[in-house]
Amino acid sequence: MGVVVAFEDKSGPLASIDAIVGLTRADMAKVNSTILSRTGSDVTMIPEVANHLISSGGKRLRPILTLATAQLANYGGEGHIKLAASVEFMHTATLLHDDVVDESDMRRGKPAARMLWGNEASVLVGDFLLGQAFRMMVEVGSLRALDILSSAATVIAEGEVAQLAAAKDTATTEDDYLAVIRGKTAELFAAACEVGPVLAERPRDEQSACRSFGMNLGIAFQLVDDALDYGGSGAELGKNVGDDFREGKITLPVVLAFRRGSEQEREFWRRTLERGEIAEADLDHAVALIRRHHALEDTIERARHYGSMAKDALGLFADGPVKSALLDVVDFCIDRAH
Amino acid sequence: MGVVVAFEDKSGPLASIDAIVGLTRADMAKVNSTILSRTGSDVTMIPEVANHLISSGGKRLRPILTLATAQLANYGGEGHIKLAASVEFMHTATLLHDDVVDESDMRRGKPAARMLWGNEASVLVGDFLLGQAFRMMVEVGSLRALDILSSAATVIAEGEVAQLAAAKDTATTEDDYLAVIRGKTAELFAAACEVGPVLAERPRDEQSACRSFGMNLGIAFQLVDDALDYGGSGAELGKNVGDDFREGKITLPVVLAFRRGSEQEREFWRRTLERGEIAEADLDHAVALIRRHHALEDTIERARHYGSMAKDALGLFADGPVKSALLDVVDFCIDRAH
Repeated sequence: MGVVVAFEDKSGPLASIDAIVGLTRADMAKVNSTILSRTGSDVTMIPEVANHLISSGGKRLRPILTLATAQLANYGGEGHIKLAASVEFMHTATLLHDDVVDESDMRRGKPAARMLWGNEASVLVGDFLLGQAFRMMVEVGSLRALDILSSAATVIAEGEVAQLAAAKDTATTEDDYLAVIRGKTAELFAAACEVGPVLAERPRDEQSACRSFGMNLGIAFQLVDDALDYGGSGAELGKNVGDDFREGKITLPVVLAFRRGSEQEREFWRRTLERGEIAEADLDHAVALIRRHHALEDTIERARHYGSMAKDALGLFADGPVKSALLDVVDFCIDRAH
Repeated sequence: MGVVVAFEDKSGPLASIDAIVGLTRADMAKVNSTILSRTGSDVTMIPEVANHLISSGGKRLRPILTLATAQLANYGGEGHIKLAASVEFMHTATLLHDDVVDESDMRRGKPAARMLWGNEASVLVGDFLLGQAFRMMVEVGSLRALDILSSAATVIAEGEVAQLAAAKDTATTEDDYLAVIRGKTAELFAAACEVGPVLAERPRDEQSACRSFGMNLGIAFQLVDDALDYGGSGAELGKNVGDDFREGKITLPVVLAFRRGSEQEREFWRRTLERGEIAEADLDHAVALIRRHHALEDTIERARHYGSMAKDALGLFADGPVKSALLDVVDFCIDRAH
């Protein structure tokens, strides 16, 4: 499958994350060496599994956001390095556990860790990374940052369980779906962006602004991801196109197509997603239904809406290179759909 | 299977945990209501899964130890309640994840959560409880207690991965085995006992004494557990006798029987534990070999050794009802073997 839906281009040349990568390069080098040293263990399976995933070429968007928002808040200390590494560890732990939950074969274009080392190692190395994340946060010593990140850990798990409970349920509303992705994806973006100004002891409104930026960016990011699962190419996704369909995951493209479809079409969604009776040609048919009802374009439109909210959230910060680079990230996340 | 090996009785009447349960009853009621409120979630699967395990009649030994060592340290605040609840959540999260790793069918005499709600829910609800544990610790606000418990989370996961790496390896030495159980079991006992005097801001030597008490008690506890798996009854264990054998887990009774056995016997252990070729009568034969080499009695003897170290660790505290009740816990853990 490699159906690429041509979306109408509204934003001129495609945005890039070059600016934010450049601005955070020096800090990111420190984060990377922290990550490397904190995955070390005498139990050799731990660095093997952890580094399989960590060095598999993710963009490290979440730690970059922590570094950039710390810069935006004129933070002068070193605590943001360990918090950024903590955020990446929390993310990696989630991916390891997700692969077990979803029974995924691929992750970031490579075999999922569970395919190489088994479910057991994925669960336990995930737990190890979560433990290391908390240790680093404790070392930084900010109780407020600890509060934000430990609450995020709870909310993420809650979102994942909610997704599990909603799985295969075609009656899922757009609101239900939004609650799930706020938890499972956007909360960590929000926490990653909030802790920078918290460390810098900036006023509460700036902390909230960065949190709101991260939350809305995270929602936009996940919406685009969900669209790509029906309209991207495997290379872009780093996983198989149609994975969500095969797993019976109810994402926004399906929520929209289901509600806009005929009763006959709804029966198709129920058979495939709820009852898991999926035949060879069903993915093509699913994509065709989603296109017929403009469900991908409108998922991207929704993403653009949350992207705008993210951008506006930064309005109270003065213009400058860091703010401008953060705004580029929003456009970059949405432009992935092209 | 219900082979009960008669151990020589060296300690007179069997010890009980009645004293420590009595002394901590009022605090434990608060811990229980904290546990109840912190497993609450709009995502109904979370309290269902969590309470299935939490209310399944575990002895809550770990939180009791946190409460009792806080009393021993004359702690006057309320922080020990949330830390005790955190300790129980960390333990419950570990059990949920262990069941997935071990593919267990039973836990505490009931079907394991993963048999009722699936592996997915066990992984994710475990993550939720871990997140809630950290949130409660953050609320208590002691960075040193946070350090101890977050480090414990890492060490526990490391111990579990080490066990996974050593699984099915009959070349495991007693030292390798001890390193595993220090991590996977004793570390949480140690942390549970250390945070009480830490909260009470007692001198470092008292903190270390309580940590040492917990560590050695935890080792003794696990040794007896491992002996019961070959010589207890299902009711005592709350799981199936012979589970360790069927899972190819290398525990001390096997380490001893393997080393004391003939080459023919060692080939039996390699076939069953390493290659997993287990026939109907093999568990009975395994138990017979373990009895022939007095491996259960000597496992209990080893437990008694660590139990003595645990008791001596408390030597620098003045005698009194709390200290005496803690010493009873050591005897109780070892007397379970009778």
